[in-house]
Amino acid sequence: MIDKSPEKLKTILAETESVGLKEFISNLSPLELAHTISRLSLHEQNKLLTTLNTPDAAAVIECLTGAQAANLISGLPPAESSKIIYKISSRKQIVILRKMAERDVKAILEQMTPVVAENIRKLLKYDPDTAGGLMVPEFVAYEEQDHVSQVLNDLQVNRDKYKNYNVQYLYVKNENGKLTGVLRLHDLFFHPGGMNLKDIMITQPHCIKATASLGKLREFFSEHKFFGVPVIDSEKKLVGVVLPQTVEKASQKQSERQFLEFSGIIGGDEFRTMPLISRSRRRLSWLSINIFLNVCAASVIAYYQDTLSAVIILAVFLPMISDMSGCSGNQAVAVSMRELTLGLIRSKEILRVVSKEVWLGLINGLALGILLGLIAFIWKGNPYLGLVVGCALMVNTAISVVLGGCLPLILKSVKLDPALVSSPILTTITDMCGFFLVLSFASIILSKLT
Amino acid sequence: MIDKSPEKLKTILAETESVGLKEFISNLSPLELAHTISRLSLHEQNKLLTTLNTPDAAAVIECLTGAQAANLISGLPPAESSKIIYKISSRKQIVILRKMAERDVKAILEQMTPVVAENIRKLLKYDPDTAGGLMVPEFVAYEEQDHVSQVLNDLQVNRDKYKNYNVQYLYVKNENGKLTGVLRLHDLFFHPGGMNLKDIMITQPHCIKATASLGKLREFFSEHKFFGVPVIDSEKKLVGVVLPQTVEKASQKQSERQFLEFSGIIGGDEFRTMPLISRSRRRLSWLSINIFLNVCAASVIAYYQDTLSAVIILAVFLPMISDMSGCSGNQAVAVSMRELTLGLIRSKEILRVVSKEVWLGLINGLALGILLGLIAFIWKGNPYLGLVVGCALMVNTAISVVLGGCLPLILKSVKLDPALVSSPILTTITDMCGFFLVLSFASIILSKLT
Repeated sequence: MIDKSPEKLKTILAETESVGLKEFISNLSPLELAHTISRLSLHEQNKLLTTLNTPDAAAVIECLTGAQAANLISGLPPAESSKIIYKISSRKQIVILRKMAERDVKAILEQMTPVVAENIRKLLKYDPDTAGGLMVPEFVAYEEQDHVSQVLNDLQVNRDKYKNYNVQYLYVKNENGKLTGVLRLHDLFFHPGGMNLKDIMITQPHCIKATASLGKLREFFSEHKFFGVPVIDSEKKLVGVVLPQTVEKASQKQSERQFLEFSGIIGGDEFRTMPLISRSRRRLSWLSINIFLNVCAASVIAYYQDTLSAVIILAVFLPMISDMSGCSGNQAVAVSMRELTLGLIRSKEILRVVSKEVWLGLINGLALGILLGLIAFIWKGNPYLGLVVGCALMVNTAISVVLGGCLPLILKSVKLDPALVSSPILTTITDMCGFFLVLSFASIILSKLT
Repeated sequence: MIDKSPEKLKTILAETESVGLKEFISNLSPLELAHTISRLSLHEQNKLLTTLNTPDAAAVIECLTGAQAANLISGLPPAESSKIIYKISSRKQIVILRKMAERDVKAILEQMTPVVAENIRKLLKYDPDTAGGLMVPEFVAYEEQDHVSQVLNDLQVNRDKYKNYNVQYLYVKNENGKLTGVLRLHDLFFHPGGMNLKDIMITQPHCIKATASLGKLREFFSEHKFFGVPVIDSEKKLVGVVLPQTVEKASQKQSERQFLEFSGIIGGDEFRTMPLISRSRRRLSWLSINIFLNVCAASVIAYYQDTLSAVIILAVFLPMISDMSGCSGNQAVAVSMRELTLGLIRSKEILRVVSKEVWLGLINGLALGILLGLIAFIWKGNPYLGLVVGCALMVNTAISVVLGGCLPLILKSVKLDPALVSSPILTTITDMCGFFLVLSFASIILSKLT
């Protein structure tokens, strides 16, 4: 049984020579490695990377998520980190550099040769969730007039280089560098060596613009079962290849980010290995906005203070109405957000959502209203109390279900992030409404309640 | 400009002959098709499937998500639906049948030949998020003593059949049917036709058990950049192949499901094309449990009714404390759930989470407590009121952050679904705590508040 524990790694790192470090690491799966490294102190993490030689350190970095790797690399001097970055695959380079502070990225790029640095800078300019941001910048391309035998020869000669390119297709360009055709690798075997690529290639190949969104890419791969799609820039020049697994992975990251944002983690990213202060600040920035929204909602209660004094038991039901309406609304928010992501609904189809949610809101409002009304009646023996809280919950549920269903669509069409903004806005509005309904209903039949 | 609107499709379907239906559909991308079909009535959906011939109907079904397809197919008589199901790819068959009512599945399988039905039944028995549940049951396998030329010949003869198999690897089994080797397709080209597969195959191939979890599969593919992994049953016989894109897709579905469950959609699945009653029932079942949890929490307020009567302004702050603590706690829940999914934390590492969250909870509690305390003080001009609500929020934030961080780990280790259960439990406990803190602090210094 090999000891794979973080403690064992800590012991190895505490030694001056750190004997057996490489062997220890080679026994871990990437997941175990990520888990173990997240248990090290900042100092130990630095020691780990600097003790390993550059290719081994790069291999470690490749196993980690972008955020974890960025965190680890930021701790090294730029001269060291640039060497490691240089050794990792270009897709991962971009993923990691995107997660680092701008200043750190600049320092690292300055250590690289101008050509390499310029290439990376170009790739960093693409938005993350576009074809340009998701593509692998390496591909194998030839000219139209190249012969089959030349290509086979080139593939043979450069096999070590191409091995890492994930080559499934060969791309063909004309004299201006524009993409004009595509070939599957095995097409080469079935044609005489003297033929031009132009004569055997598939012309007008499917391709996608560098600015195409993740949604577009997902649509493309759901329609075409390809192993990759070429990406072209504004001049129709081939700049990279997007692989279907990258698209799937990016979609998953997107839903994870949505989930975290929806729960109030701004930026959709937090690991417990991040520094305490940065975690605290991120969470607080969202909470402190929320507290002011809460004050707005609570001011409705303050306005009806007299009614509340007269029927103090209502104070018991206010948080319940607030919580229940929030829950009903959030269910509708989640369904809308999912349908938006899957492309099953578009942001202008608000009327459709209203027509679907209003009935559901009324049915669920009726059910919950009756339930809460009965609870209040049985608890306090006053049917009017039951009527007030039951009706208030009923109306407020209907409002919050409809509002929750529409909010993501509205926010999306005004270019706000539905995941981050829906829930606070929903809660504030439904709280205000709910408090108003309970307390105004109560004011109307105050004599029956006291 | 082609009219691709749902209205156009409705017009076509309203005709007796539905001329141009096939053409209309062939102009839509899969996403547009899914979107358009979701706009049809149940009757129109049935007409759509029955008007198309079986292969075309199957092609339509292939484009839809499992839930949408299941919904559509359930509307047809079993004799019709079994024909369509038979025509779609075996992966998709399973995905769709899993989403259908058991009774409907039984009826459909009875219409099929016993062998086909038995095969499907076998596949349905695997848990959805395991290698068995995610594998493609088709693959190309040969015997160890087969010759290279025989294999090449078989590939040529059956190319139409294999074309749909996504063949990247050929598998090799011994006389007992056990998986003993693997070959890449192009390995065949570089060996003489008379050689045995046994002599050119890669022995002891990587493989995965049919019961392996989605997490294990994700780990496997993050470690090995393969185009697929063979799946073996308990007797080490090859039963299928899992593709990396299936694993990515399943992971994404898992996070989507988590997101919906977290928002109170039981089962993690709802589309607005589902019948109103089933949507309402699903949402209600979660809400009605929540209402009882709310009653528990609110009973704390009822217990302190006298204090509240004396200082009615406290009623304004109770929903705020409840909402703010809930938000702080949910942030921690989301981070824990993400770290659990990514395998960065294990369910027994509660102490680690506590040690990470307790400081964050104290810092954020301090910040929010001071903020709310100041708001209360400025609003009502009573420093003691500020002290009571500020301290209560401070303590309660710390509690809810720590609890929120730990809950998913605790729930997971007792085999409850953290996505579904974390939030209601968290809210109930932090509400009770929050109400108790505010009202008991207030009781202690009641004289200063009135």
